[in-house]
Amino acid sequence: MSSLTSVLETIDTNLDASLERLFQLLRIPSISTDPAYKAECRKAAEWLAADLRTIGFDAAARDTAGHPMVVGHHDGDGPHVLFYGHYDVQPVDPLDLWHDDPFAPAVKDDEKCGKVITGRGSSDDKGQLMTFIEACRAYKAAHGRLPCKVSILLEGEEESGSPSLHPFLEANANELKADFALVCDTGMWDAETPAICVGLRGLVGEEITVKAANRDLHSGEYGGAAANPVRVLAKVLADIHDETGRVTIPGFYDGVEETPSQIKASWEALGETAETFLGPIGLSVPSGEQGRSVLELVWARPTAEFNGISGGYTGKGFKTVIAAQASAKVSFRLVHKQDPAAIRAAFRDFVRARIPADCTVEFEQHGGSAAIQLSYDAPFLSKAKQALSEEWGKPAPLIAMGGSIPIVGDFDTMLGMQSLLVGYALSDDRIHSPNEKYNLTSFHKGQRSWARILHALADGGR
Amino acid sequence: MSSLTSVLETIDTNLDASLERLFQLLRIPSISTDPAYKAECRKAAEWLAADLRTIGFDAAARDTAGHPMVVGHHDGDGPHVLFYGHYDVQPVDPLDLWHDDPFAPAVKDDEKCGKVITGRGSSDDKGQLMTFIEACRAYKAAHGRLPCKVSILLEGEEESGSPSLHPFLEANANELKADFALVCDTGMWDAETPAICVGLRGLVGEEITVKAANRDLHSGEYGGAAANPVRVLAKVLADIHDETGRVTIPGFYDGVEETPSQIKASWEALGETAETFLGPIGLSVPSGEQGRSVLELVWARPTAEFNGISGGYTGKGFKTVIAAQASAKVSFRLVHKQDPAAIRAAFRDFVRARIPADCTVEFEQHGGSAAIQLSYDAPFLSKAKQALSEEWGKPAPLIAMGGSIPIVGDFDTMLGMQSLLVGYALSDDRIHSPNEKYNLTSFHKGQRSWARILHALADGGR
Repeated sequence: MSSLTSVLETIDTNLDASLERLFQLLRIPSISTDPAYKAECRKAAEWLAADLRTIGFDAAARDTAGHPMVVGHHDGDGPHVLFYGHYDVQPVDPLDLWHDDPFAPAVKDDEKCGKVITGRGSSDDKGQLMTFIEACRAYKAAHGRLPCKVSILLEGEEESGSPSLHPFLEANANELKADFALVCDTGMWDAETPAICVGLRGLVGEEITVKAANRDLHSGEYGGAAANPVRVLAKVLADIHDETGRVTIPGFYDGVEETPSQIKASWEALGETAETFLGPIGLSVPSGEQGRSVLELVWARPTAEFNGISGGYTGKGFKTVIAAQASAKVSFRLVHKQDPAAIRAAFRDFVRARIPADCTVEFEQHGGSAAIQLSYDAPFLSKAKQALSEEWGKPAPLIAMGGSIPIVGDFDTMLGMQSLLVGYALSDDRIHSPNEKYNLTSFHKGQRSWARILHALADGGR
Repeated sequence: MSSLTSVLETIDTNLDASLERLFQLLRIPSISTDPAYKAECRKAAEWLAADLRTIGFDAAARDTAGHPMVVGHHDGDGPHVLFYGHYDVQPVDPLDLWHDDPFAPAVKDDEKCGKVITGRGSSDDKGQLMTFIEACRAYKAAHGRLPCKVSILLEGEEESGSPSLHPFLEANANELKADFALVCDTGMWDAETPAICVGLRGLVGEEITVKAANRDLHSGEYGGAAANPVRVLAKVLADIHDETGRVTIPGFYDGVEETPSQIKASWEALGETAETFLGPIGLSVPSGEQGRSVLELVWARPTAEFNGISGGYTGKGFKTVIAAQASAKVSFRLVHKQDPAAIRAAFRDFVRARIPADCTVEFEQHGGSAAIQLSYDAPFLSKAKQALSEEWGKPAPLIAMGGSIPIVGDFDTMLGMQSLLVGYALSDDRIHSPNEKYNLTSFHKGQRSWARILHALADGGR
């Protein structure tokens, strides 16, 4: 462990200098969605490429149709890893809710969190990505080399839909393909407990429009005789769940796997209950399948959710109208091996079977992505788990996320790489909101964690 | 019949003069809902009061908080009738869809309808109300007297919610109370078939809002665990009808009566089918209770309709949100003796029983009125039926209307009077739309019809 110890000591010694580098990056308002900040995005990319070169990376900001991609490579003996992060940030409005200038970062004392780094991007994702870069810097400083062959890909459009990502991955597949990817854009379980994310739910979105009469009707004149599309739609939606919260669409659960009991046990051990999970949002009764814990429901079970519905008169007061049409936006969160195309087709069949003979239904597709389920026992996973546990002094659970991180799917399908998702963000970091922060502990121990992970990954060879 | 014959001859002889009087009234743009036409509304009221005085009515335009009421009284030996009509009209926009100036009435040849009177109000309701006034004028001219004691009430706010009507009826109840009311604001069955309306459905309106979490949620983070108010609402609405189209709310059908078989037979004889009724609006399958004709469904059966629904994201594209709340506007058309208050209470109980423990529901009341069901065998009804049948040469069916005419309920509850609803409008009169018209036949034979009805009502004494 002596070679690791010297790296960790270097990190500790140089914390103030690493903070100053992060501040330099945080001062650049690289808001990718706003064209007014185009030059600032390039500035952030160039700053990162230059910084990587000081560590010995062969790095450059590379042009795309949108904001640049930063790509860097560094030799090493161990396995080849591709680190992914993004240097763009969310807009800062409403600005008047910020206690300080979002682009004037500082370290402040927080009553609840201790010392925190403040500013837009401090957590998402500049603070997170710099934990990795600083770990590399310290390793290099301590040993003159890196323990793995490290490539780095830093995107500038993550907060604005990643339009350039697919073309870039496609055009540079050979260059970017590694043994596996390291993604630092997730969080810890809580401030004391590190976590590795191994499951990400997929998504199928559908908009359905039920059409009945050829015009809006007066409900006095036609009510009781004419089909009402709101009624048809309500019936369709009501049929989608049974009394136990299960989705009734035939074939919906094809490809859904039972979570291994030891994983479920580790989730139980986290102590999350319906009360602790739903209490803060004013609820108390899990709405999904009965007999499953809330963590299982949001991490490992598929859902059907109705994200929007509209039809008829929805303004103030009342209008006795029977609408000509009604619409709903429906989405399915997928897990494990559920097939987005099959789910979409089964849903459409299910709906069509419930449309009266003289009504019609139209479907509009809104995105579709399979779930990501990383194996619970990949060698790199157990090494990273061990490394995190040693840094934080408690076991790092393998958790999942209810939402999607599209890049992980892209790495899988486009580059044939699995991903290791480790991050140090916390749920109170206020990412995308005013007064974003990153705990100084996340930044400091995040660097140490990556140093330990890189060391562990190399230690076992490829 | 000789005394009636001379009246009918007077009507025929004076048709052109009666048309000119109608034109004078139609030229006054008495749009009640637009404050810019306030003086025009008064002008129409004064014109009518003056015209009634030329027939011998003691008539005046009487002030209200809004537009004036025209009230006139004329002695007579027969029963005392109160005639109701309204002199205000709907706005005319979109003006560019009119073929002619809406306030420059004319008689034109129409390919389908023969000669028609064109202009805003030609049917609704100036043309209709003038059929009665001209009938009185002709009777008076022929005999120097009227066959009944006639009071006339002409409202100027019917198209703008009748805010002054209740206070005026209350303040002048003794003066306005008659043996029964004659209301000329309805239509014929078709251009050859007169009709008497004896049923008007009532209405209960409710807006329900289901509330779940204390804020909008991300469906990835919370989907499957948190209650979704759109799902709760869809289930509630879907439960309201069973597979046969019947409303499932307990007690809903209390007070609903079976329509007498001879009335149903007379409706059957009208030849309306699902195809003829629903075809023009692009539908074909009656959505209400199975085993009932479309006319029975819209005239004599109660309904539950969903007039509007909204919740979550309803804009372009997709947003994976679980909304904090969702709302629906629900209305019930009532028939016969259904009690609006009982229906409202039963509905609220029904909804509350379906709201999950950690969600809430709020109700907002939107109007409530009982149905009007006039007896099928009142003496004045059979006299009017006979009179109409003689004028038009075919039986006048006793029909119903799916919608409400609030004044008829007010006459019942506030003045203790039943109403006789006779009108000569046709479904193609384009009331409330550009190019409103009234068939010259409606205007001419409408006058003759009222003369016959007044004569028949008097003939039998009170």
